[in-house]
Amino acid sequence: MQSPPTSAIDLVLAHNLGYAKQYSKAGLAPEPTRHLAVVGCMDARINPITSLGLAYGDAHILRNAGALVTPDVHRSLIISTQKFGVREIMIIGHTKCGMLGFPEAEFVERLKGDYGQSERAPQKFLSFTDLEANVHTQLEIIHSCPWVHPEAVARGFIFDVDTGLLSEVK
Amino acid sequence: MQSPPTSAIDLVLAHNLGYAKQYSKAGLAPEPTRHLAVVGCMDARINPITSLGLAYGDAHILRNAGALVTPDVHRSLIISTQKFGVREIMIIGHTKCGMLGFPEAEFVERLKGDYGQSERAPQKFLSFTDLEANVHTQLEIIHSCPWVHPEAVARGFIFDVDTGLLSEVK
Repeated sequence: MQSPPTSAIDLVLAHNLGYAKQYSKAGLAPEPTRHLAVVGCMDARINPITSLGLAYGDAHILRNAGALVTPDVHRSLIISTQKFGVREIMIIGHTKCGMLGFPEAEFVERLKGDYGQSERAPQKFLSFTDLEANVHTQLEIIHSCPWVHPEAVARGFIFDVDTGLLSEVK
Repeated sequence: MQSPPTSAIDLVLAHNLGYAKQYSKAGLAPEPTRHLAVVGCMDARINPITSLGLAYGDAHILRNAGALVTPDVHRSLIISTQKFGVREIMIIGHTKCGMLGFPEAEFVERLKGDYGQSERAPQKFLSFTDLEANVHTQLEIIHSCPWVHPEAVARGFIFDVDTGLLSEVK
C-alpha cells in the first residue's frame, strides 16, 4: 500500500492528474469574453469564480490580502483594460476580512523582534478599519490610476462569507 | 417580460442571488486548512481552485498579471505565513501567458501617446521572455523576501492551459 502524500502541494498535484484527464478547455482566447476583471481578497473562504457564476475564459481574477488596488493591481488592470479589452471592474471586499481591524503596528514590531529590520520589508500592510469605506477608497484609487482604460467602469461590493451574498457599496 | 441585464456585472449579480440561496459555508475559520498559498496569474482561462482540487477554506489564492512575486504579493505572503499559518507556497506560471514576450516598451509608448506621461503610472509591467526561467526567478524573489515565515516552503509550477496539467519547474 502506497504511503499517502505528505504535503499539501503533493496532494493538489495528485488531484491535478485526474483534473487534466477530464480537461476540455484547449484553445480558449486570452481575452476575457465578459470583458470583466474582478479584484478580490486572497481569503480561503472565497471562490470568486463560482460565487459570480463565471466560466473558463470569462474574466480576469486578481486577488491579494484585502482586495486592495495596490500598485501591482494598478499594473494588472492597465494590462487587463488596455491589452485584453476589459471594460468592467469589480472590487470585492468581504466580511470577516483579516485586514479589517488588523493591529498592523504590533504585527510589525513582532516581525522586527523575530527577524530584524529590513529595507526590503513592506513599509505598510494596508490594514483598514471600515469595510465599506475601504471599498470606496479602492474605487477612488482606481479612478486616479493613470492608463487604466477610461471606458472601464469600476463598481464596489462586499461579499458576505456567511451568506454567500454580494451587496453593492453605494 | 423583464429586460435582460446589460452589463457583465449585472449578470454576475443576478447569478449570485441564486448562489447565495444554495450557500452553506457559514462559520469557516480564516486560517487555510491546508496551510497553503497559491500565487497564480489573473488569466481568465485558469481556475486555480478546481485545477488543484481545493475546497472552501483550504488555501489563500493570490493572482496578478503574470503570477509574479511583486511587493504586493510579498506583503500578502507575510500576512499569509505569519498571521494565518501558511507553510507551503505554489508559484504557478502558465503556457500562453500574456506577459510572456509582451512588447512592453511599445505598450508604454502607446499609453504615453494616448494619455500622456504620469508619475503615478507603473515604471515597469514586468513582462518576461522565458516562462520556466521566470518561475525560477519568482522562487528566488520569495527566498529573498524578509519576514515570510522561514518554515514556509515554496515550489514552482507551470500550468498548461491546453491540457490542464501542472508540471513542476525543477
